Amino acid sequence: MKTIAILGSTGSIGTQTLEVVRENQDIRVAALAAGNNIALLEQQIREFAPKTAAVWTEEKAKELRERVKDLPVKIVSGMDGLLEISVLEETDILVTAIVGMIGIRPTIAAIRAGKDIALANKETLVTAGHIIMPLAKEHHVSILPVDSEHSAIFQSLQGNEKNSIKKILLTASGGPFRGRKREELANIQVEDALKHPNWEMGRKITIDSSTMINKGLEVIEAKWLFDVDFDQIQVVVQPQSVIHSMVEYEDGAVIAQLGTPDMKLPIQYALYYPKRRNLPGDRLDFWKLTELTFEQPDLETFYGLRLAYEAGRAGGTMPTVFNAANERAVSLFLDRKIKYLEIPEIIHYCMDAHKRKEAPTVEEILSAEAETYEQIESRWS
Amino acid sequence: MKTIAILGSTGSIGTQTLEVVRENQDIRVAALAAGNNIALLEQQIREFAPKTAAVWTEEKAKELRERVKDLPVKIVSGMDGLLEISVLEETDILVTAIVGMIGIRPTIAAIRAGKDIALANKETLVTAGHIIMPLAKEHHVSILPVDSEHSAIFQSLQGNEKNSIKKILLTASGGPFRGRKREELANIQVEDALKHPNWEMGRKITIDSSTMINKGLEVIEAKWLFDVDFDQIQVVVQPQSVIHSMVEYEDGAVIAQLGTPDMKLPIQYALYYPKRRNLPGDRLDFWKLTELTFEQPDLETFYGLRLAYEAGRAGGTMPTVFNAANERAVSLFLDRKIKYLEIPEIIHYCMDAHKRKEAPTVEEILSAEAETYEQIESRWS
Repeated sequence: MKTIAILGSTGSIGTQTLEVVRENQDIRVAALAAGNNIALLEQQIREFAPKTAAVWTEEKAKELRERVKDLPVKIVSGMDGLLEISVLEETDILVTAIVGMIGIRPTIAAIRAGKDIALANKETLVTAGHIIMPLAKEHHVSILPVDSEHSAIFQSLQGNEKNSIKKILLTASGGPFRGRKREELANIQVEDALKHPNWEMGRKITIDSSTMINKGLEVIEAKWLFDVDFDQIQVVVQPQSVIHSMVEYEDGAVIAQLGTPDMKLPIQYALYYPKRRNLPGDRLDFWKLTELTFEQPDLETFYGLRLAYEAGRAGGTMPTVFNAANERAVSLFLDRKIKYLEIPEIIHYCMDAHKRKEAPTVEEILSAEAETYEQIESRWS
Repeated sequence: MKTIAILGSTGSIGTQTLEVVRENQDIRVAALAAGNNIALLEQQIREFAPKTAAVWTEEKAKELRERVKDLPVKIVSGMDGLLEISVLEETDILVTAIVGMIGIRPTIAAIRAGKDIALANKETLVTAGHIIMPLAKEHHVSILPVDSEHSAIFQSLQGNEKNSIKKILLTASGGPFRGRKREELANIQVEDALKHPNWEMGRKITIDSSTMINKGLEVIEAKWLFDVDFDQIQVVVQPQSVIHSMVEYEDGAVIAQLGTPDMKLPIQYALYYPKRRNLPGDRLDFWKLTELTFEQPDLETFYGLRLAYEAGRAGGTMPTVFNAANERAVSLFLDRKIKYLEIPEIIHYCMDAHKRKEAPTVEEILSAEAETYEQIESRWS
């Protein structure tokens, strides 16, 4: 029997994690945390019976306490609440499916408490990889990637503990603007950018996929997860999204993980690692697949991907600035306040303006984020 | 320091094995065995200084003894010679790169003596898989596949010791006649069949690749190597020969090994397993690869592949008959004594005529082979 806690249980990864729990008998939910979706969280509490649940504001917490007063569940709130449910005695794995910098402190607390981390919070490694990875090593804790690409790499590394990675081949769908030139993107509207060919995703991530900044963030995560240099991470556009990523070894052998686009696979793999289990759903049919194609990403059109490599190579607080600037720029674009091509321009501006700090503490990371937000606020809002 | 012995050192796999030895400092050659190419064997003895070398006939052995009389090498001959060098005290791994049924007894002797087997002799598992695999298990000996496809499957299984195989996806180039209809092959000449798009191979194997009977033999080998049913082995035509084979697991994840067509990779992997080492040579460049395509094999045109599944499913002595009939039929075709489409017809005839024996001994396997040879001799020669 395994016991998990989920930060961000009402989001896409959170709900799919609970689907995996539902289909397996030997996994228990110790705690759930959500932001605003009290109605769904209530349902989840009724179905999965966690001992503790967290919401962000004390106001929502009060509302939730009222809704579930017939149940023996403790409702907590704020960062203290998140920290409390991240270190619960009975938890084996903390699933960090929460979005944003808010995930960093609970992840650190969980690692210190010896919990394995099923990592779906991008910001954790992008901004604090230099803190998280050594800490996980020190506490003998596994960081199990939940992202499709990183899980594919992780799966491709199995049985190769003695072998060093020559190259990580991080695949990308290329998004809806693959093949377009930069100038063709000048008048892209929100509606155009929200179409994504292969995966169902939220609005923010869909824009990030269209700019390939999503892939840039994954490059930085991969650097930390798999302890490689940026030169060893090659983004390969594979528009059919069948190959979820690959690893090249010293002997030239490339190991890849392929599959249908189903996030439950990496979630389940992380929860039961190294054991696989049956997972209902479609299977790849190579007799019908016909073809897979490969392209080099166009770093002129997808300028944000180039900036991600630059931010990653610069290190320190720079990836935080990259991520924060992108977050706000995408938000401004979704609010129709800036044009599509201004997204990478704003990131570039913020990176140029930033005084980079080496090996930042969590506080320094959070102030680099705040500073970036303020800068964008003062110039573009 | 590892010590190996090679049966079939002057053939394609044998010479490439010695190339791998040449590029590594910590591997020693205890013994070499060859058939007729005394000149090359002499060179190999001078370069790799084995303590023992074997040739097939005593006549050749005498000739070789004369040639290397300045060296402290013992020259042996015949099956006794092969058996002697297969069980040498100092050998860790026996590389069975010899062609034909002649490889079975030495392989069995080596397993009994506790040697790991780097297996490149197709006949061993096709005809005697039911003897070899349990014996290897009993003696805690590893059977390390050297064939490109089986090595790819083996590599894709690493780190999945706890996971059961759902399906093996055995890739095939499809050979030079891929896409043709059966009737279009009626007048195929030896020259047409000897062209193979991706791999450098010997004449016999090139014909087997053109008929896809090579793939059929690999299906039977895979059944034994990976302990799966024939229903779990799916042949996927992948004409670019980039994906060397794949494994599908219960959760739908497919793990694949990809690479350039270089037999030194599976050879080196078998010799140093599970450690990989740098291997000079080309690397896959996914930015330039453009596409991979997939097809279902056409079992009308490539009727021999269907017969392989039938022979494999029948089991007992039937795969021996399949293999022996194919061997002679290909030889008759290369001698221009039969037409191309008669190759599967002859196999079919022999399989129909054969009284199958369950769980045959090595003697029974050898007599099934001899009987098949005689049958073909009497009807077609």
